[in-house]
Amino acid sequence: MKPFEALAIRIQDQGLEVLDQTQLPDEEHWIAVDSVETMFRAIHELKVRGAPLIGVSTALFLAQLLNRGASLSDFHQAADYLKTSRPTAVNLMYSIDRLKTVAETTMDAAAVIVDAEKQFEEDQDLCRRIGEYGSSLIEEGDGVLHHCNTGGLATAGIGTALGVIKTAFQQGKKFHVFVDETRPLLQGGRLTTWELEQQCIPYTLICDNMAASLMKDGKIQKAIVGSDRIAMNGDFANKTGTYSVAVNCWHHKIPFYTAAPVTTLDFECETGDKIPIEQRDSVEVLGAKGSFGQIRWAPNQASTFNPSFDVTPASLVSGWILDTGFYGPDEIKKGILKTLA
Amino acid sequence: MKPFEALAIRIQDQGLEVLDQTQLPDEEHWIAVDSVETMFRAIHELKVRGAPLIGVSTALFLAQLLNRGASLSDFHQAADYLKTSRPTAVNLMYSIDRLKTVAETTMDAAAVIVDAEKQFEEDQDLCRRIGEYGSSLIEEGDGVLHHCNTGGLATAGIGTALGVIKTAFQQGKKFHVFVDETRPLLQGGRLTTWELEQQCIPYTLICDNMAASLMKDGKIQKAIVGSDRIAMNGDFANKTGTYSVAVNCWHHKIPFYTAAPVTTLDFECETGDKIPIEQRDSVEVLGAKGSFGQIRWAPNQASTFNPSFDVTPASLVSGWILDTGFYGPDEIKKGILKTLA
Repeated sequence: MKPFEALAIRIQDQGLEVLDQTQLPDEEHWIAVDSVETMFRAIHELKVRGAPLIGVSTALFLAQLLNRGASLSDFHQAADYLKTSRPTAVNLMYSIDRLKTVAETTMDAAAVIVDAEKQFEEDQDLCRRIGEYGSSLIEEGDGVLHHCNTGGLATAGIGTALGVIKTAFQQGKKFHVFVDETRPLLQGGRLTTWELEQQCIPYTLICDNMAASLMKDGKIQKAIVGSDRIAMNGDFANKTGTYSVAVNCWHHKIPFYTAAPVTTLDFECETGDKIPIEQRDSVEVLGAKGSFGQIRWAPNQASTFNPSFDVTPASLVSGWILDTGFYGPDEIKKGILKTLA
Repeated sequence: MKPFEALAIRIQDQGLEVLDQTQLPDEEHWIAVDSVETMFRAIHELKVRGAPLIGVSTALFLAQLLNRGASLSDFHQAADYLKTSRPTAVNLMYSIDRLKTVAETTMDAAAVIVDAEKQFEEDQDLCRRIGEYGSSLIEEGDGVLHHCNTGGLATAGIGTALGVIKTAFQQGKKFHVFVDETRPLLQGGRLTTWELEQQCIPYTLICDNMAASLMKDGKIQKAIVGSDRIAMNGDFANKTGTYSVAVNCWHHKIPFYTAAPVTTLDFECETGDKIPIEQRDSVEVLGAKGSFGQIRWAPNQASTFNPSFDVTPASLVSGWILDTGFYGPDEIKKGILKTLA
């Protein structure tokens, strides 16, 4: 297999390694993925996270399995087992099913390896295209608000919303990123901060509730977020707290953009009302959990509300940055998303 | 001295005791305040917090000192020392100066004790009046959003915004409170949750960034917050994150109220632009700190934005609930606050 290195996965002589994201930002510990069980646990314990990254990592692991001489039967068994490591991750199912189809069609290990490598390259490419389509939105001197983590820790490439930011920075633009810490799981505070430091992009970490007053004070000129699922009318689901960012941008007349691959479009879903929102464990809201340990500051029995996502209506969105291009509200209203199937 | 018991201070046979708020919500540990140093440390280490409560506690402690036979000279020395325990707390200065004036005017320990007890009763009274003026705003079946802690853990009485909620509950109304956790110091998650449980008032704890989607889903009918300083045009400063609540309420056409004693009015301050906003230590945003320990999840050297307060413009406020009455936007625009001096 070809050697390569991305921010959070790499293949070297020793084989596939993944960056243990639960140890960030303090420690950069790489895990050698040398068994099905190691891969399973890395996903299950969120050491590898981010929908595209999970899919690509698993594809590369399965390719490595064949590369090291496993039979196609072993490959299928491992593939089915890894699907259960994170049952709600659509990209994981997609990546594995795609590889399984190649295996079943060709009965050829080499073809499967080629396809896994292609999945990696495709994810890099689409991040690059999103970055290119979006980077012109960022202007010299801007303050750019970002929510959650949408970068190289979530994809095999430069990321989606964070990829736009990185591309603009690589173009030599000087601007400042405001990083929402993103309660309850703190992906902004733990991961986006680390990733921006890797790239030497200047940023300021804030609590989610502080963005509004920065907008009022003229410190934020635009917000760019990712997307977990986009309905055909442009409504989209993203990490909890995104909708509040959108409302605050609207109130302060600040452009609000979402960046995502076309694979995020849900062609079965007409509007955001149809997107199911899963409730997560209350322990996340009662305190905080990570490599720093697990703490609780609220009463143990407190009832909580802990939606994984919220839905932002298209009416609050200034533009959709996809790997196929940039789409404004008028194009979305005309139903352009349906044509991207 | 008269025995009495409030939520977080009490006088019994043993003398003044304060509830150690740093141990909440898990432990209810009362500290016997038997020395100047104990009082100083209780304030300095935030075991006693909330501007009115700090003032009243200190007044009662100084009265106890005289009651136990200290000289007026010892009293003045202790009073001056305690002023340095939290230099920015205006209520603390006010309470101490008021007692010192009584002492200097009357040269009578008994008169000082009477005045300290009066300060306690006055704070209870004004909370009661705020509660009465505000409680009619809460209707059966409401979802009421609250930010920070404004209750019996911050005052000698039932509180301000939380006092309104408690009064409505005591009137037999059935409604539900949504508690913003209030990053970074988590007064909502740690203290308001505990206080509502004491009163058996049903609540749901949320992360600050989740309030907007609850509003969109029709779960919140009004928001009531406290106030740290009110300018003459009705703009007010309150715990960071309040402005975001106000913007979200405005967008969803949800009434947004602030509740505070008249002593919160700043007659020298024409508009909110004139209110100075202090920046706090970045360690608060890098992680969380409390009786559960001190943890950090962000990169150690991350730059942060950590304002103690933000300012909400009067244009977003549906009503001001003071201990002198309820004032709507029209009265505020006519300059009624200036007449309350």
